[in-house]
Amino acid sequence: MNVEPIGTIHSPFTVQRGTPIQPAMAQGAEGRVELHPEYADGLADLDGFERIWLIYAFDRAGPARLAVTPYMDDRPRGLFATRAPTRPNPIGMSCVRLLAVEGCTLRVADIDVLDGTPLLDIKPYAPRFDHFEVQRWGWLQATDSERTVADGRFEGGSDRG
Amino acid sequence: MNVEPIGTIHSPFTVQRGTPIQPAMAQGAEGRVELHPEYADGLADLDGFERIWLIYAFDRAGPARLAVTPYMDDRPRGLFATRAPTRPNPIGMSCVRLLAVEGCTLRVADIDVLDGTPLLDIKPYAPRFDHFEVQRWGWLQATDSERTVADGRFEGGSDRG
Repeated sequence: MNVEPIGTIHSPFTVQRGTPIQPAMAQGAEGRVELHPEYADGLADLDGFERIWLIYAFDRAGPARLAVTPYMDDRPRGLFATRAPTRPNPIGMSCVRLLAVEGCTLRVADIDVLDGTPLLDIKPYAPRFDHFEVQRWGWLQATDSERTVADGRFEGGSDRG
Repeated sequence: MNVEPIGTIHSPFTVQRGTPIQPAMAQGAEGRVELHPEYADGLADLDGFERIWLIYAFDRAGPARLAVTPYMDDRPRGLFATRAPTRPNPIGMSCVRLLAVEGCTLRVADIDVLDGTPLLDIKPYAPRFDHFEVQRWGWLQATDSERTVADGRFEGGSDRG
């Protein structure tokens, strides 16, 4: 399947090092999403949502690795048990806060993606669809890491950073 | 960007009509994910998670439409304010319950995807990353629809069903 960007995500973050690991750790960092004008009609009704999912390409991640040491842990974990960007299909998802819809531009907060990231899709965040009460969340449950930002370990072309 | 299936999702649902709209409405329907063996090592540590995100291709959806009438509403909405499958990049995401990891097979419940769906990625569901308290969720907040299953309106090759 071929996927084509439908727009571009802009953020204050130009390199992985220092970029928030997740929206929940982004401390309100603001960015904007520029949707290609031909898709503008698809933004109708989006402004009613407080949060939206951005689906995007990890365009600057290194090649896929099946074992990775996540930012919030100190030992290797299976890739699919992590949100690391070095995936067979490097597709990322981030639930950001929607501040405003201005034409083809979305102003967003809690952004955790690199500036210039290719946007693949936008979906609404709905508690009924996206919030599940769970009792177990694996290695993330045990971590006491206070790390909130990335380093260079998943950069393309580099070895473990 | 080219994406390639990393496996196949199997479910009891062979046509859109009658398929649950979302995992939250799937009433425990069980399925299984068959990961291609070359990615097996990436499943390490996944069994600690109660829920996982499946990222997949809506391979039987019709062409992209920028206005759609969602299953749970009775008027057209902007595509990106819905989870309809008829998207420019037909990528779906479903948070399913992980019952067991058995080699390259994941047994899952609360499945809402069609049998034979191409799998693109697996990510862990973590409350810290995926649960956000929101006050507004747009048209979904107002709907009193009790619909839980799809009809044929988003099928490929058909007009509005």
